[in-house]
Amino acid sequence: MEKTVVVAVDAMGGDNAPEAILAGVAEALAEIPALHVKLCGLPEVVEPFAAEHERCDAVACSQVIAMDEHPAQAFKTKPDSSIVVGCKLVKDGEADAFYSAGSTGACFTAGTMVIRRLKGVARPALCTNVPCPTRPVVMCDVGANADCKPEYLVQFATMATLYAELLMGVKNPKVQLLNIGEEETKGSTFAQEAHALLKQEVPNFAGNCEGRDILAGTCDVVVTDGFTGNVALKTIEGVGSMLFAEIKKLFMASAKTKMAAAVLKPGFTELKDSVDPDTFGAAPVLGLKGPVFIGHGSSSPRAVKSSLALAVRSVESDLTGKIADALVAAAEADSSREADKA
Amino acid sequence: MEKTVVVAVDAMGGDNAPEAILAGVAEALAEIPALHVKLCGLPEVVEPFAAEHERCDAVACSQVIAMDEHPAQAFKTKPDSSIVVGCKLVKDGEADAFYSAGSTGACFTAGTMVIRRLKGVARPALCTNVPCPTRPVVMCDVGANADCKPEYLVQFATMATLYAELLMGVKNPKVQLLNIGEEETKGSTFAQEAHALLKQEVPNFAGNCEGRDILAGTCDVVVTDGFTGNVALKTIEGVGSMLFAEIKKLFMASAKTKMAAAVLKPGFTELKDSVDPDTFGAAPVLGLKGPVFIGHGSSSPRAVKSSLALAVRSVESDLTGKIADALVAAAEADSSREADKA
Repeated sequence: MEKTVVVAVDAMGGDNAPEAILAGVAEALAEIPALHVKLCGLPEVVEPFAAEHERCDAVACSQVIAMDEHPAQAFKTKPDSSIVVGCKLVKDGEADAFYSAGSTGACFTAGTMVIRRLKGVARPALCTNVPCPTRPVVMCDVGANADCKPEYLVQFATMATLYAELLMGVKNPKVQLLNIGEEETKGSTFAQEAHALLKQEVPNFAGNCEGRDILAGTCDVVVTDGFTGNVALKTIEGVGSMLFAEIKKLFMASAKTKMAAAVLKPGFTELKDSVDPDTFGAAPVLGLKGPVFIGHGSSSPRAVKSSLALAVRSVESDLTGKIADALVAAAEADSSREADKA
Repeated sequence: MEKTVVVAVDAMGGDNAPEAILAGVAEALAEIPALHVKLCGLPEVVEPFAAEHERCDAVACSQVIAMDEHPAQAFKTKPDSSIVVGCKLVKDGEADAFYSAGSTGACFTAGTMVIRRLKGVARPALCTNVPCPTRPVVMCDVGANADCKPEYLVQFATMATLYAELLMGVKNPKVQLLNIGEEETKGSTFAQEAHALLKQEVPNFAGNCEGRDILAGTCDVVVTDGFTGNVALKTIEGVGSMLFAEIKKLFMASAKTKMAAAVLKPGFTELKDSVDPDTFGAAPVLGLKGPVFIGHGSSSPRAVKSSLALAVRSVESDLTGKIADALVAAAEADSSREADKA
């Protein structure tokens, strides 16, 4: 028999909550036999749903954190919110992972403050699957740390490599630094320093990549500061939405184009899905003592289901334990290098 | 009779030089009666062409700067290269503008060292038209200054506003800061400081925009540091190329899809062109005493022609003079603010 994986789910988070969340949870429960859900939210939302579904417990909360609240403030003033309660379940060992499509900042803050960082982690980071149609591409950090020190990126590389291997099935992933030129002398002072450190400390570091490479089919793991990563990720989403909107106009232009579009539609739907953040589910916060997955605010039921599948796989593959081991090993290698120097 | 505009053209720059450059110059000469070209390059390239074309003089140079040479080094060791000679023609008043599809770094260095900065300009910046199908969008800096101070962005805003108005025909352009959230408290320390300064000193500043907004039809002028701007611009190009390559695969999948694609092809070609950097021509370096336009390395003859048209319009509209006036006015406003404080 498969081991049960308990995921605490924020029923209240996201633009389409609670309807989209509940629909996604229902789909996930039906498809993933190992999944057990602790559904956190207002009692009138979570209790009737839990009563109607097996392997789902209601965890009544009296507060909800809105998408636009200040994360640190919301964390302080709303200890009985679905986000904070969900993180507490992970901290107390009552859940194996937490998932929310709510405020990224609030989830990140609650995860860091309640579940806490793994030993040796300088900064937890938000990692994501970039919507690439041809292969898995992982980018880290995509917004948790707007200001980074070069050494953070070494840890991002270690953590995101394990994520790519264990959850995305990438064999021997290579790490690249998002920069504005191929040569190591290119880029900002920060990028040059990060390049030098990555080269020294990350065995699978393969040099710089540029914005145009992210989706070109040559990247596995892209590391960057959270500011640049967030701009790049949102730019990718923006270009995709804009182009598909323009293509829709072309399709609808006349009776003739509509007929032609009908022939091409299955292929286009597949392509559109392949660059849709919904397909990939949520972005994990890497570096915490328990897995936290944060979904897109606009998550559909399908996105919720993919996210829960990802959360279950991260627990089953012991991503957290393997990250902890890798960081210990990296710290040991680092101190033996220091000792050699001394 | 129209006033003649003399553009110094680097015949040797770009991946497709000199053929694509010469073909583009020929087209431009045929279409732009005001244009007079001083064609800089190896004598065997420029002399036969000049002999066959009216309003074109050959300027023989003995050196060529390759795309991958170190800019500062190349500038020092190749004083008789087509890039350095072209900039000298502008400095000496023998040309009104310089255009090259060669090394961006070398053109920027030569422009800054030979033509020199306008009085009061902290850092010249590379400005570009973002390939947006629905409207003109201008982004600055897109790579000249990987490390920026917040105050540079105030000048980028002033200069890029004039570029958008005079050359792109945008009426009352508003300026936005590329950031990772809408609120002024969002982003890196740098972005927060830049926001505060822009708000204080730039009358047409309209707050932050995010990566997904750049092509969404809501931006006129986007200011950012050169690192972030370069990543965003190349990401846009990368997503566009990737999606059009995938669409081509869909079109070619079967006899049926090929027939459907034939119906849709004119619309798709137009859309693809509208996001093609070639359509927009070159990116100007803003803040120099004379206009320098740098084309994409892969510039086609069409791109060369568009770039030369842009260079002519920038001279005719006196972009340089208007930027100089605006910077003097901004400096005066600034010192009167300082005086008020004292």
